[in-house]
Amino acid sequence: MKNFLDLARAGPDLVAELVTLAGRLQRHPEPDALRGKVLGLLFMNPSLRTLASFQSGMARLGGDSFVISPGSSWNLEYLPDIPMTGAAAEHVREAIPVLASYADVLGVRAFAGGKDLVEDLSEPVFSAIEGLCSVPLINMESAANHPCQALADWKTMDDEQIPKANGRFVLSWANHPKPLPLAVPAAAAHMAAMRGMDVTVLRPQGFGLPSDLMQRIHTAANQSGGSVTETEDREQAMDGAHVLYAKSWSATDVYGDAQADRDLRAGLTGWTVESDWFDGADPSCIFMHCLPVRREVVVTGQVLEGPRSRVIRQARNRMFAQMAVLYRLLADKGD
Amino acid sequence: MKNFLDLARAGPDLVAELVTLAGRLQRHPEPDALRGKVLGLLFMNPSLRTLASFQSGMARLGGDSFVISPGSSWNLEYLPDIPMTGAAAEHVREAIPVLASYADVLGVRAFAGGKDLVEDLSEPVFSAIEGLCSVPLINMESAANHPCQALADWKTMDDEQIPKANGRFVLSWANHPKPLPLAVPAAAAHMAAMRGMDVTVLRPQGFGLPSDLMQRIHTAANQSGGSVTETEDREQAMDGAHVLYAKSWSATDVYGDAQADRDLRAGLTGWTVESDWFDGADPSCIFMHCLPVRREVVVTGQVLEGPRSRVIRQARNRMFAQMAVLYRLLADKGD
Amino acid sequence: MKNFLDLARAGPDLVAELVTLAGRLQRHPEPDALRGKVLGLLFMNPSLRTLASFQSGMARLGGDSFVISPGSSWNLEYLPDIPMTGAAAEHVREAIPVLASYADVLGVRAFAGGKDLVEDLSEPVFSAIEGLCSVPLINMESAANHPCQALADWKTMDDEQIPKANGRFVLSWANHPKPLPLAVPAAAAHMAAMRGMDVTVLRPQGFGLPSDLMQRIHTAANQSGGSVTETEDREQAMDGAHVLYAKSWSATDVYGDAQADRDLRAGLTGWTVESDWFDGADPSCIFMHCLPVRREVVVTGQVLEGPRSRVIRQARNRMFAQMAVLYRLLADKGD
Repeated sequence: MKNFLDLARAGPDLVAELVTLAGRLQRHPEPDALRGKVLGLLFMNPSLRTLASFQSGMARLGGDSFVISPGSSWNLEYLPDIPMTGAAAEHVREAIPVLASYADVLGVRAFAGGKDLVEDLSEPVFSAIEGLCSVPLINMESAANHPCQALADWKTMDDEQIPKANGRFVLSWANHPKPLPLAVPAAAAHMAAMRGMDVTVLRPQGFGLPSDLMQRIHTAANQSGGSVTETEDREQAMDGAHVLYAKSWSATDVYGDAQADRDLRAGLTGWTVESDWFDGADPSCIFMHCLPVRREVVVTGQVLEGPRSRVIRQARNRMFAQMAVLYRLLADKGD
Repeated sequence: MKNFLDLARAGPDLVAELVTLAGRLQRHPEPDALRGKVLGLLFMNPSLRTLASFQSGMARLGGDSFVISPGSSWNLEYLPDIPMTGAAAEHVREAIPVLASYADVLGVRAFAGGKDLVEDLSEPVFSAIEGLCSVPLINMESAANHPCQALADWKTMDDEQIPKANGRFVLSWANHPKPLPLAVPAAAAHMAAMRGMDVTVLRPQGFGLPSDLMQRIHTAANQSGGSVTETEDREQAMDGAHVLYAKSWSATDVYGDAQADRDLRAGLTGWTVESDWFDGADPSCIFMHCLPVRREVVVTGQVLEGPRSRVIRQARNRMFAQMAVLYRLLADKGD
Repeated sequence: MKNFLDLARAGPDLVAELVTLAGRLQRHPEPDALRGKVLGLLFMNPSLRTLASFQSGMARLGGDSFVISPGSSWNLEYLPDIPMTGAAAEHVREAIPVLASYADVLGVRAFAGGKDLVEDLSEPVFSAIEGLCSVPLINMESAANHPCQALADWKTMDDEQIPKANGRFVLSWANHPKPLPLAVPAAAAHMAAMRGMDVTVLRPQGFGLPSDLMQRIHTAANQSGGSVTETEDREQAMDGAHVLYAKSWSATDVYGDAQADRDLRAGLTGWTVESDWFDGADPSCIFMHCLPVRREVVVTGQVLEGPRSRVIRQARNRMFAQMAVLYRLLADKGD
């Protein structure tokens, strides 16, 4: 494994190995495995879980880390061939090789622009930087992907003994005051399909996942023996579900149009996950969400703190999943 | 000791042990005591001393740390049962358990809101989070408390051989352009009372410490054999004083009313500590302040850099005091 | 060596030693050399390379570091004797001794104000803080100096076998949308002169380096056997050049006058470094820039990514140069 950018590119065997390794590092700490190694973390967008779990995970393997957060006072350009007369003081074509020259592995976060769907789906920042990094590169959430979250979620489902074949995974859109990126829903549905589950994408009209992303999910399902369907019928979707994974995302039919997006979601206040959503689900059905989550908008506090919720375990598994990625990239390159 | 939230809850025996331990770690470093441990630091308000002293202190014990600073782009909600449609993207009911899942000990800073005195005195953030943290929790300054500062100040007075019984401790209000929280004055006066000193709170009309806080200070004095008085008579207060501890705070009579507060303090320009304040004091009287301090407003540069000033030693003792807290919470749980 | 503030004050012998040490630490890592030591980093201005290279370098020597970044919410005052009623909540006269009390070595960055040339050349912040720091102090870029960059650049030229005696070093002004500090051009030209090179400062009318800075460069050249000239004739400057070091800086003739500066540089769009600048240069001539760099404004992407460019190696050498400084200040005090 040279980089960790996408579960699809890693492939099911490596993903399974990483999940196993994450569990091993959780049970049997290796506090000296990455002694002397340095992890660079570049956040073009803010972070709580990702920063804390990467820094803590690297420390628990004996390594060190540094954090770079461009903010209000400076930005990084990623578009090619543009005279840089604006707010961006530096281009990723310099910044990435420089940071890579200080680090043994580099994590980068770069959210979607949220204006142009085709552009966001093309992963403009990661496309721009992938060839520039002389050390292993980790996707800490890109425009349309979040493989660290997906790996942690896979481990969480394994920990909870959620079935793979015939396991029913419902990714449900949920209400939210703002249009949010597609990275987590795309990564979660793809991961579940790759895990061999029967995936249902439950969402209102106007919020269908883009065909490119659905195609990726279908491909993963075809390879794993899983399946994928889309619906706006909650009852049908939740019937026998083993997992309800909630997440809000932008109205894809009016992507980039803030007013139209607001108008669409104004009528969707019923998409706050409540206890009765689970009425037809498998009795053991769990509730998942990547966090951060807006209480009483995305989901009620009752569900979040109820017996079905696994959101804190998911977040905790971010650390172990990422430790496995770091370990595999730096300590043990595998066969 | 499970948490470190309040000297009163720790009790005088444990506080004395911590002060002794701080001195021991200062003289006899233990650079491997917390090897493999991770300290999480959550700053809901900015910091210089607290961040630097915690990170350096943890490193000097062999441990690691990470810093989370919600800022302009995101905030944490702590009020219960509110639909989260505003600026806060995450609730402490998720954020604290998640951070606790990455850390072996968690420090949190959350200043007073400064609008509603009753609310601030109820410690709304720490009340909300205390039960949520699965690892030891440290108060790095809350709405009405600052036990790390108080512990460091206790050590500073011990280092300076300031008497306990019959030691005269004057907490004086001082001028400042802004209404500031009650955390430090409340913690300093309480600490001095707990240490068995005769505490005088010197402040102008309108700036009396709230009765709840005075009650805590009286209780500590009663238990320790100290005493507490309030006055606006500087000469009387400073008579024979061993310590002048200066700090500005909000006008409690008009708490939350910015204009009324400004009007009140406009006439109080005489409350800048100058050399002649010490005229009736004990010859060895020292000057203390928690920093940051506004020169020529709170105190003159002459006093700050004069022979009575111990402000840099106080700040340095923050590191040793906090190392003792970390050590006790993580390395040596005591009896 | 007690501090690292200026190559001129360090002197040529110590600089040569540091360059040698940087190369040794690059080839032969010493991962335990600074075990238990703590580096404090105070950034009054933002940073990418400096923060990352110092934190990574300190970690690679086994030490720890912390970062303090005053920002929008608070500032540090450095002017003496001013009643602090404004935005600055703390004075460097407290902040520096306090940070020094937590650290074994302290790095400080404080850019030029850009308003008053005489004031900026007097190094107001470093003049204010130098006597306040009880531990070794490192200049991480001041109003008119950047010795860490200069040391890295010296190493880069050594690595590239650029001649010292008779080596031709051209410092060229370049276009930029904003007036920038004089720190890097002053430090680069001074370093090259100190290295014994023939230095040409190539700049348009109105952008001459201030006489105080030129005097420093002449003094260094006189001591080393090098030379210094200024010109606006590019062809003459580049004739036989071994190094083209590009950097933009403020219009010194109208320093602090933003409109006049803009007017002056509006006519200077020809000062974007392009491939044909090297037509009369030595065939092995390299291109250097300290980064960050604005593409297609300061220099074309073609030159930046072409075979002459050494900008990434320069940046990488920041880490090794600073490791040498840290090592010399903390591990090995020399003879």
